[in-house]
Amino acid sequence: MTVRVDEVRAAAERIAGRVRRTPVIEVASGLTFKLEHLQHTGSFKPRGAFNRLLSAKESGELTGQGIVAASGGNAGLAAAYAARGLGVHARIFVPANAPAPKVAKLHKLEAEVVQIGTEYAEAYLAAVEARDESGALLLHAYDQPEVVAGQGTVGLELLDQVDGFDTVLVAVGGGGLLAGIATAIGDQARVVGVEPELSQALHRALEAGEPVDGPVAGIAADSLGARRVGDLAYAAVQDNGVRSLLVSDDEIVAARNELWHAYHLGVEHGAAAAYAALTSGVYQPAAGERVVVVICGANTDPTTLI
Amino acid sequence: MTVRVDEVRAAAERIAGRVRRTPVIEVASGLTFKLEHLQHTGSFKPRGAFNRLLSAKESGELTGQGIVAASGGNAGLAAAYAARGLGVHARIFVPANAPAPKVAKLHKLEAEVVQIGTEYAEAYLAAVEARDESGALLLHAYDQPEVVAGQGTVGLELLDQVDGFDTVLVAVGGGGLLAGIATAIGDQARVVGVEPELSQALHRALEAGEPVDGPVAGIAADSLGARRVGDLAYAAVQDNGVRSLLVSDDEIVAARNELWHAYHLGVEHGAAAAYAALTSGVYQPAAGERVVVVICGANTDPTTLI
Repeated sequence: MTVRVDEVRAAAERIAGRVRRTPVIEVASGLTFKLEHLQHTGSFKPRGAFNRLLSAKESGELTGQGIVAASGGNAGLAAAYAARGLGVHARIFVPANAPAPKVAKLHKLEAEVVQIGTEYAEAYLAAVEARDESGALLLHAYDQPEVVAGQGTVGLELLDQVDGFDTVLVAVGGGGLLAGIATAIGDQARVVGVEPELSQALHRALEAGEPVDGPVAGIAADSLGARRVGDLAYAAVQDNGVRSLLVSDDEIVAARNELWHAYHLGVEHGAAAAYAALTSGVYQPAAGERVVVVICGANTDPTTLI
Repeated sequence: MTVRVDEVRAAAERIAGRVRRTPVIEVASGLTFKLEHLQHTGSFKPRGAFNRLLSAKESGELTGQGIVAASGGNAGLAAAYAARGLGVHARIFVPANAPAPKVAKLHKLEAEVVQIGTEYAEAYLAAVEARDESGALLLHAYDQPEVVAGQGTVGLELLDQVDGFDTVLVAVGGGGLLAGIATAIGDQARVVGVEPELSQALHRALEAGEPVDGPVAGIAADSLGARRVGDLAYAAVQDNGVRSLLVSDDEIVAARNELWHAYHLGVEHGAAAAYAALTSGVYQPAAGERVVVVICGANTDPTTLI
């Protein structure tokens, strides 16, 4: 199953006015940043969340039971934000060891937070159980068609905002953003995924010939640490001939520092991964190649910007 | 003497390709930020610096002696950046007690740094002397027509980028940015200056009926701490009926923290002053009023973003 470009277009109409049209900036000749970290809640995730919730509202699947989701990170913030925006209850399952500031942010967004188990997989199973028991709508962090279609609206905006480009670099965790952008852009530009060496779910899937579980670690694990790439993302990558590049944690840290010092952008490590492919030389544009880097998340500790 | 709008238009042509066209983002209905802190060197100052230097190049005033300027802050960075961009030497005079990181940034931009005296006024006198002795071009931080016209290109971009707005809030130090924007926008919108209570050069001038010297202090003094508002700024303010509002240091700190937490923008205290007028209620938009806030500087210590 893959997501079609008309589903991305429908998502754009559905979520208009709910999400910010984030700006682009050409920082050097042929190098443009899409400032998606300036989205509500500090990541692209509200696009998919709103599309999933609004679609379910249209179909009657979104009931008085509200939604459930599992995430102590950007997906959880987006779920809580979208639910609040639509006036429905959000129950967010997070591991018991989730950092207090993240839990506080979810509370601030009026979500009910359930702390359970010691890792994400347990929180996810609890969310699925709660869905089965209550009839609440399950919002997946990346592997639902409406979520992928919603994230793809980033790609539609790029086609509209940037006057010709050859390549888009996108960070990959579970692959929802990559899949959506690849679907939206199709053959109009090359879409390249970038993963941390220590959390390389897509890379692993491409090697195995299918999505497989793998280890999750490293400095960007809080935003890109998916055990397994989404089935939808894997299909979109196959359909569109998308490559996956790997960057080291050191390269991510260096790119993040450069984004702050040279471009005044305070971003999370995961959001620096795509730019790290350029600064490390892992991706080397040809002469005259016009590259867009999607800056996808801002939720970081600013005291670590050095 | 005032700067005319056609001088701002000429500046825009002159500096095109040298400065970034910084993006705007509508963060809420009727509230738009102009992200000028994403400009080269982290402030709007390169606009005026390039316009001054390129104008002088056209007229033959820019010689092999290069330029001199006095500033340990954003104006100095912009002077060094513009000089390097045009391949001329920059000698920047800063007080002997200027912070080492700022001096290091100037060195990184290949400027010659002269540390002299204990406050800005002494550095400025030394720069004037050096100009007189060497024939180098003096780049003032805010009170030269080409500088004001260059900063005014922010206003031209706003007219082009924002589809209708009623009010622009602009932070004021020496008033170069305010004067340029007021000139560019004329009667197409209301332009409002915002000053820290502890560095209120424009406010003082409006009370005295002319620019006068005054004390400089407070948390935003590094970017907005001008002893005396520029003559050009004062004239532009009179011509365009611009008001000046005052915000406290606490209000600036609160606005800066909100810009980080709610909008993911890491900005310097001076750049938060304009937004502080809104968050403090010092400026209260009417129902339906469409407001633009110019975010004008990013040079800050990120460890103080809390």
